[in-house]
Amino acid sequence: MYSKFKSEITIRPDDIDMNNHVHYSKYLDYLLAARFEQMERDYKVAMSEFIKLGYSWVASKAEIEFKRALVLKDTAVVETQIESYNGAQVYVNFWIYKKDSMKIAAEGKVIYTMVSIKTGRPVRIPEEIIEKYSV
Amino acid sequence: MYSKFKSEITIRPDDIDMNNHVHYSKYLDYLLAARFEQMERDYKVAMSEFIKLGYSWVASKAEIEFKRALVLKDTAVVETQIESYNGAQVYVNFWIYKKDSMKIAAEGKVIYTMVSIKTGRPVRIPEEIIEKYSV
Amino acid sequence: MYSKFKSEITIRPDDIDMNNHVHYSKYLDYLLAARFEQMERDYKVAMSEFIKLGYSWVASKAEIEFKRALVLKDTAVVETQIESYNGAQVYVNFWIYKKDSMKIAAEGKVIYTMVSIKTGRPVRIPEEIIEKYSV
Amino acid sequence: MYSKFKSEITIRPDDIDMNNHVHYSKYLDYLLAARFEQMERDYKVAMSEFIKLGYSWVASKAEIEFKRALVLKDTAVVETQIESYNGAQVYVNFWIYKKDSMKIAAEGKVIYTMVSIKTGRPVRIPEEIIEKYSV
Repeated sequence: MYSKFKSEITIRPDDIDMNNHVHYSKYLDYLLAARFEQMERDYKVAMSEFIKLGYSWVASKAEIEFKRALVLKDTAVVETQIESYNGAQVYVNFWIYKKDSMKIAAEGKVIYTMVSIKTGRPVRIPEEIIEKYSV
Repeated sequence: MYSKFKSEITIRPDDIDMNNHVHYSKYLDYLLAARFEQMERDYKVAMSEFIKLGYSWVASKAEIEFKRALVLKDTAVVETQIESYNGAQVYVNFWIYKKDSMKIAAEGKVIYTMVSIKTGRPVRIPEEIIEKYSV
Repeated sequence: MYSKFKSEITIRPDDIDMNNHVHYSKYLDYLLAARFEQMERDYKVAMSEFIKLGYSWVASKAEIEFKRALVLKDTAVVETQIESYNGAQVYVNFWIYKKDSMKIAAEGKVIYTMVSIKTGRPVRIPEEIIEKYSV
Repeated sequence: MYSKFKSEITIRPDDIDMNNHVHYSKYLDYLLAARFEQMERDYKVAMSEFIKLGYSWVASKAEIEFKRALVLKDTAVVETQIESYNGAQVYVNFWIYKKDSMKIAAEGKVIYTMVSIKTGRPVRIPEEIIEKYSV
C-alpha cells in the first residue's frame, strides 16, 4: 500500500463556468497541479528533474466521477495515491474534497506513462524511480 | 443504435501546454464544444432552450483514453454518439480524431445528468427530449 | 493615496504555455483572483455581497506590460492599488512580482465598471462603497 | 499603411465565465489565435518557421478596451493591422467584432518582441521578415 498525499488548490475566478461551478475540465488541472506538488514535496523527484533526465510523464487515461460541485468560495483538497506500476505506467487514484467539510467533490483514477522526451516513446519506469515513489 | 455526429474544433495556441501538445484537460473542453454544437445543429434542441425551460446538463462522469497527441497544426474532429438513457442520465461515447489523417487522438465516454437549475437536482429526462435525441 | 494590497497566486501547470512560461493572458486571471481575495480580505466587501445587492464589476479596460516571464517554479505576488474613482468606474494599478526575488514580472492598470446585473448598465459607485474601499 | 486581416474565432463553452460572457482574458487568446492564423495564411511566415529559425515572438505589452460582451452564441471576428516596427518590436492594432452585427466587442493594441529562443533576448527584426510582413 502506497501513501496518500494531499495538496490544497485555491480556486480562481477563471475556473468558474457559466453554471457558477468549477468547470468540469479544471478538476483535471487541479489533479495535475497536486501531482506536481507531491512529486517535489513528497516523492522528492520534481517534474523538472525528470525533464532534465530526458523523461516526462503524460496522462494515458483519466476517469473522473463528479459528486459535488466545487464553487468559488471552496478550497479544493486533492488527495492522490499510487495504486500500482506496470512497465512504463503508473496507476494513480485520486479524490478531490471541499476543504471546509471534507466532503467529496470528485474522485477517479489516472494512468500516467513515462516517456522519453526525445522519442516520445514510453520508457519502462526505472527501479530507482519506483523506489523513490514507494513512500 | 443512435446516430454519430461530428464537429470540427480549431486548436488555439492557448490550448497548447509545456509539452507542445494540446493540454490533456482541453480534450474535455473540445468534447463539450462539440456537444453544444450538435445539440443545436443535429438534435435541434440548443442548450439555451434547455436553460430557458429551467434545465441544464452537468457531467457526472467522464472517462478518456489518450491515444495520440494533438498538436497546434492539427484540427480536431470530435464525434459523439448516444449509447443509452437511464432516468436523468444519458451515456455518450466520443472519439476525437486528427482531421488530416482521421487517426484517433482520444476516445472515451461521458455521462451527463439533466438537472433542474432551480434545485440543482437530477430530473428524469422527458420522453419528448429523448425523442428529439433519437435521431 | 489608497492602500496597496498583496495576494499570492500559486502557478499551476495548466497556466504554462508552449514557451514554458505562464501564458500571457493568465496574468489577467491572476489579477482577477487577487482582486477577489482583496475585496473580501482587505476591503471587507466580497464580490458575492455585490452580487447579492444586484451589482457586479466588469473590466472595461486593461493595460499590461510584460517585464519578466513567470515560470512554473515561481509564485506570483499580485499587488493592487486603487488610483481613483470616476462615476461607475474605478481605476486600479497593479504589479505582479516573482515572489522569490520580488522582481517585477508585469505591471499595468485596469478600469473596472460597476454594473447592474439586471440591466447590464453602469451604475454610479455609491459613496458607502467608496468609503469601504478608502482604506 | 499595412493591410488589415480578419480571422473568425469560434467561441467555446469553456470560454464563458460566471457572468455568462466570454471571460475577459480570453480576448487575448482570441487575438493570439488570429495572429497565428494570419502569420501563416496572410504573411506566409508561420510561427513554426520562426521557431525553426530559432526565433519566437513574445507579447511585451497589451492594451484592450472592452466595449460589448461576447456571448456563447456569438462568433468573434478578430481583425489586426501592423502599425509600425521598431528594432525587435512590432506594434499591432486589433479589433474584435461580433460576427453577426459586426459591432465592436473590444479593441486594443499589442507590442510583440522577436526573441532568440536560445537566449530569450530580443533580436532586431530582419529586413526580410519586415518585407514579408509588408503586405
